[in-house]
Amino acid sequence: MKISDHPLDHLIRQLAGLPGLGPRSARRVALHLINRKDEVMLPLARTLEATAQTIKICQTCGNLDHSDPCRICTDHSRDQRLLCVVATVADLWAIERTGSYRGVYHILGGVLSALDGIRPEDLRLPQLVARTTGGQAQEIILALSATVDGQATAHVIMDLLRDVPVKISRLAHGVPVGGELDYLDDGTIMTAMKSRAAV
Amino acid sequence: MKISDHPLDHLIRQLAGLPGLGPRSARRVALHLINRKDEVMLPLARTLEATAQTIKICQTCGNLDHSDPCRICTDHSRDQRLLCVVATVADLWAIERTGSYRGVYHILGGVLSALDGIRPEDLRLPQLVARTTGGQAQEIILALSATVDGQATAHVIMDLLRDVPVKISRLAHGVPVGGELDYLDDGTIMTAMKSRAAV
Repeated sequence: MKISDHPLDHLIRQLAGLPGLGPRSARRVALHLINRKDEVMLPLARTLEATAQTIKICQTCGNLDHSDPCRICTDHSRDQRLLCVVATVADLWAIERTGSYRGVYHILGGVLSALDGIRPEDLRLPQLVARTTGGQAQEIILALSATVDGQATAHVIMDLLRDVPVKISRLAHGVPVGGELDYLDDGTIMTAMKSRAAV
Repeated sequence: MKISDHPLDHLIRQLAGLPGLGPRSARRVALHLINRKDEVMLPLARTLEATAQTIKICQTCGNLDHSDPCRICTDHSRDQRLLCVVATVADLWAIERTGSYRGVYHILGGVLSALDGIRPEDLRLPQLVARTTGGQAQEIILALSATVDGQATAHVIMDLLRDVPVKISRLAHGVPVGGELDYLDDGTIMTAMKSRAAV
C-alpha cells in the first residue's frame, strides 16, 4: 500500500494543510474523527458547511458575523466616536475578550509586509480614510502589533490621516502584566522606563 | 459580544476538541477556513462527510479501508503466515511506510492501561486467538510500544497463545538510528548492550 493509495489520504492531506497541523498531527486528527464518526466527524462536516454559508464579512469594519453590517457596528450602545484599527479579526476577538473597549473597529486584513508581499493596496486603507473623513470618529486607536511590520503600517496610516482632524493614539508599550524583567528584551525595558508612570 | 455569542463559536469549539488543538489554534484554523471558503472549507466539509460514509473497519484485522476485508488482508502477494500485532491503525501505517514488512496485521485497538481503564475485554484479543488457532499464521510479531502498558499487553498475549504452536517474536530494542548515546535513557543503553550484535 503506497501512501497515495491510503484510504484516508485525501482527508489527511486536507487536514495537514491547516495552520498548526502537519502530516503527523493530521493523521492523529483523522483517526480521532474516524473513531467518532457520529459524535464528532459528521457534526464537524455539517458545522463547516453551515458556517461557510452563513458567515458574512461586514462591509463597514471587515468583521466576520452572521449579519452585514455586523453586530458591533450596529450596536448603538457602543461609542461610534472611538475607532480601533486592528490587523485581523483575531486581534478584534482578543480585544473583545478583555471586555474593556466599547468603541467600534476597523480591520485592515493584515499588516504591510515586504517579506509576505503585502502592499498598502492589499489592506482596507481607503475604507479607513473614507470612514475617518466622512464618519463620526474622533479618535483612532492603532492597536497594531509592536513589530516592524505593525509599526510600519501604523506610520502609513498616520501619514494617510495627516490632514484629517482626528486624534490618533496607539496601545501603550511596557512590561506585560505578570512579565519578569529578567526575561524581557532591552527594547521593552527601555520603552517601559521612558513611559514610566507616577504612582 | 460575549464569547458564547461569537459567530464562529460553534465551529471553534468543535475544532478545539480535536487532538493537538486548543482554543487558540482552533481560532486560527477557523479564520484560515473562513478566509478560504471555496478552496478549503467546503472541500474539507465534503471530504469529512464522504470519508465518514465510505470508511469501513476490516472485520479480519481491524484496519480502516474502503473495503472489508481490507486491501492488506486480501492482498495475495502478502505472506499470510506472518501476523504483526499492533496497538492502533497509526502503528500499522508507521510500519507500512517503511515498506519493509510483507505479512498481514492484527490491530488490537489500544493497549491495556490501568490509568485509562482499558481492560483485556476492550481489545480485539479473542479475534487474535481465533485467527492464530484457526488460521495460517506461523509467526506472531508483537510490534507494541516499549512502554509499561505495551509490554504488559505483550505478556497477556503471550499468555493467551501459550498453547498455540506458533512462534512469537517482538521488535528489537536498541539505540534508535541517528540517536545519540548521551541523550538515551539507561534502560535503552543496557538493553542495546545486552543485545549487541557481531559486526
